[in-house]
Amino acid sequence: MKQFTHHLQLATRGKGLYPITREIETWTEGRGLRTGLLTIFIQHTSASLTIQENADPDVVRDLDEFFERLAPEGAAWYRHITEGADDMPAHIRAALTQTQLTIPLVDGRLALGTWQGIYVFEHRARSHRRSIVLHLAGE
Amino acid sequence: MKQFTHHLQLATRGKGLYPITREIETWTEGRGLRTGLLTIFIQHTSASLTIQENADPDVVRDLDEFFERLAPEGAAWYRHITEGADDMPAHIRAALTQTQLTIPLVDGRLALGTWQGIYVFEHRARSHRRSIVLHLAGE
Amino acid sequence: MKQFTHHLQLATRGKGLYPITREIETWTEGRGLRTGLLTIFIQHTSASLTIQENADPDVVRDLDEFFERLAPEGAAWYRHITEGADDMPAHIRAALTQTQLTIPLVDGRLALGTWQGIYVFEHRARSHRRSIVLHLAGE
Repeated sequence: MKQFTHHLQLATRGKGLYPITREIETWTEGRGLRTGLLTIFIQHTSASLTIQENADPDVVRDLDEFFERLAPEGAAWYRHITEGADDMPAHIRAALTQTQLTIPLVDGRLALGTWQGIYVFEHRARSHRRSIVLHLAGE
Repeated sequence: MKQFTHHLQLATRGKGLYPITREIETWTEGRGLRTGLLTIFIQHTSASLTIQENADPDVVRDLDEFFERLAPEGAAWYRHITEGADDMPAHIRAALTQTQLTIPLVDGRLALGTWQGIYVFEHRARSHRRSIVLHLAGE
Repeated sequence: MKQFTHHLQLATRGKGLYPITREIETWTEGRGLRTGLLTIFIQHTSASLTIQENADPDVVRDLDEFFERLAPEGAAWYRHITEGADDMPAHIRAALTQTQLTIPLVDGRLALGTWQGIYVFEHRARSHRRSIVLHLAGE
């Protein structure tokens, strides 16, 4: 089996879901493997990863609003407040979603379903540069 | 190292957790490997995967009810409503649980704990046919 | 590619997050691989895994409190109550976080971000002995 690693950078512009499916498919399917396993790992605790519907953009807007309501800024009981009102909610939102996703490669293609898109879920209000590590093993 | 892939289909009959442990163990442990890594990937964004207690069936009933209460049908603020009242809650429930699970194979057996069962978590109200991709690598 | 497995035991003393980063890094980076994939799997359904900020200890305290509020002990609608008031909340908290984490190994080091720590998230009120299985594959 062969292994490949890659480092992606993504510039985010505030809270919300940023699609990265195409970039990940292009890199993965360009390695020349037929069968394998791709792992996507985001190196942050205030941004995360999720797989969600890629068709109606209202889905990812509603998803962001759900988390906004579930872990609102400025809850009176937060102790961790020195890094901004959006920071503790960001950590909660990251804990509730994924830091890592692993997806099989079958017949040379990532085994995503028709309606599945891969997203970086930014939880901070301001712009950030996010680092993502890819690892692919297979033959 | 060798690799194997497999495609499971599961017919669901409305919201709830459907056990798939036995089917997954049978396939995995039948590949003849001693040490390896199994990845389970569900190709949907309105159904998901979870590992939960396999003993008292009330656990998975309560788990389903928790998510019903956390992301209720018909919240006034949902924008994504054209696919049915259960669709946006389904996407939220999927985001809060897993699209993928990876489990080590040790001494020829999946390293599940005594009380751990693998479940497909169906989030839509009607019957669906769900696709699951398995990837196993090892020796 | 080579494979290694390992079994960790952790004694917890009630609800909260217990850091395991150093122990996992020491074992992983001691296997002599340059590139690979580490999988961490916890064999329980009332304790889980999460990657969170390793700097301000208030983050993990707030995270624990968030889950305490989201899935409180003694909700009137729980059916599963025979194993104690903290048991059903524990299963919910485990379902909302991770049973498994997979992290790439790049240039001989785990690809954790600067502020990322790996934690066992104990959801039961009393002391427990928790079992974690590690699987590493690479070259």
